[in-house]
Amino acid sequence: MHVVVNAAMSADGKLSTREREQVAISGPDDFDRMDRLRAESDAVMVGVGTVIADDPSLTVDDAARRAGREEAGDPPNPARVVADSRVRTPPDATVLDDRAHTYLLVSQAAPPDFVEQMEDAGATVIATGQDRVELVTALAKLEGDGVDQLMVEGGGELIFSLFEEGLVDELSVYVGSSVIGGRDAPTLADGDGFVDSFPELALSDVERIDDGVLLRWTVA
Amino acid sequence: MHVVVNAAMSADGKLSTREREQVAISGPDDFDRMDRLRAESDAVMVGVGTVIADDPSLTVDDAARRAGREEAGDPPNPARVVADSRVRTPPDATVLDDRAHTYLLVSQAAPPDFVEQMEDAGATVIATGQDRVELVTALAKLEGDGVDQLMVEGGGELIFSLFEEGLVDELSVYVGSSVIGGRDAPTLADGDGFVDSFPELALSDVERIDDGVLLRWTVA
Ligand SMILES: NC(=O)c1ccc[n+]([C@@H]2O[C@H](COP(=O)([O-])OP(=O)(O)OC[C@H]3O[C@@H](n4cnc5c(N)ncnc54)[C@H](OP(=O)(O)O)[C@@H]3O)[C@@H](O)[C@H]2O)c1
Ligand SMILES: NC(=O)c1ccc[n+]([C@@H]2O[C@H](COP(=O)([O-])OP(=O)(O)OC[C@H]3O[C@@H](n4cnc5c(N)ncnc54)[C@H](OP(=O)(O)O)[C@@H]3O)[C@@H](O)[C@H]2O)c1
Repeated sequence: MHVVVNAAMSADGKLSTREREQVAISGPDDFDRMDRLRAESDAVMVGVGTVIADDPSLTVDDAARRAGREEAGDPPNPARVVADSRVRTPPDATVLDDRAHTYLLVSQAAPPDFVEQMEDAGATVIATGQDRVELVTALAKLEGDGVDQLMVEGGGELIFSLFEEGLVDELSVYVGSSVIGGRDAPTLADGDGFVDSFPELALSDVERIDDGVLLRWTVA
Repeated sequence: MHVVVNAAMSADGKLSTREREQVAISGPDDFDRMDRLRAESDAVMVGVGTVIADDPSLTVDDAARRAGREEAGDPPNPARVVADSRVRTPPDATVLDDRAHTYLLVSQAAPPDFVEQMEDAGATVIATGQDRVELVTALAKLEGDGVDQLMVEGGGELIFSLFEEGLVDELSVYVGSSVIGGRDAPTLADGDGFVDSFPELALSDVERIDDGVLLRWTVA
């Protein structure tokens, strides 16, 4: 499986404000690039924090790209994947609509009636880990289901865990031209943080897009 | 006064680890660029958090640059400025050595005996603000003392306050190729954070240096 993390941050590394309100960080050209990346992926993943904060659809915006996928024998939209240990995804979340198939990664601690509710909504539930989703096993199960290209859109808690588990192959970061600030605002990689051995990246591309810059790294 | 903020952050926006241990984020070419910027400045400023964490000297490393300053009639090193409301700077801090003149920006809440200790160590103490340094007034006093070009090296708490007060003219950020992570690690701009109106920047330059990239913005 090839895992690409793609996110937009302010000049000071924030994904949104301390109130976790979505902020327009990038512009139309970066949005289009992101839409293309979605269309090229088998699945698009977020943490439940992002579902609760933003209620995203994670679908492909461009109709021609959806048609192109169908011509290639794929569903119009990539599958959606939500890491959600105890099923905090609201039953009316947009990620549960019928525009794409949805995987809910949960832990053994997920309440069975909540799991059932998600299955009733059409989601495929994958349970790994005691209290929290065990990402290595969960991603291996997704790969067994045909997910070879996985795009991860955030947030910072999920992205940190993926780096911690050595699961990230590529990191694309759009750096916008604003300052959000805030010691409690979500950043590109939150979690506990590394203290001595840091994941080393190799900068592969630098490109000015909209009013900011896209930085792309491969993970060593 | 022209205020340039210059700092190095990881790909995920961190200035150091959650343990506030200094991490080598940039490389020799960026260090040299930073040394040149110091040599071109009238003063170099940090918050007391950085003094406590890193005990920096804030002096110019390159002897030829120091000589060049002296030929121009300036002291070999720019002045040092520490924002330190209650005098937490340790009496044996390197910023108090005799290699450069040092300004300590304190508040009215600074204990008089601590202030005296700093003055005995040769520092010029400037008091503004009730409980916390009031930066607009403090920087105006520095300007009155001949500081036209001020370089700010961090950390994130001080940088946020300077943006909040509209005092920043330029932002230079070296983005390194590593992930530090950590919801409690210091970022380029901490403080309370903005929630609606964000300082807008204009990206003026993008340059690959060492293994990372230098992003330069002017503040609108
Ligand atoms: N600018 C951008 O590109 C962008 C993109 C995405 C999100 N965002 C912003 O980011 C914020 C949300 O980010 P976030 O960091 O709070 O949430 P997140 O990373 O989306 O979700 C975190 C949650 O995922 C669940 N999770 C399950 N297994 C996990 C594992 N192994 N490791 C880590 N998390 C796991 C955890 O909840 P459980 O323990 O309950 O499972 C955790 O709290 C929002 O403000 C959103 O607007 C911005
Ligand atoms: N990578 C880099 O380029 C770089 C550069 C510098 C620092 N760092 C790292 O950053 C960390 C330290 O950063 P930090 O954010 O904790 O500390 P900081 O910004 O250096 O200092 C913050 C302190 O300055 C004092 N201060 C006085 N007046 C202020 C005002 N008006 N606004 C804000 N602060 C004011 C406050 O203490 P009082 O209330 O007691 O006055 C505040 O706690 C360390 O881990 C260091 O290694 C990295």
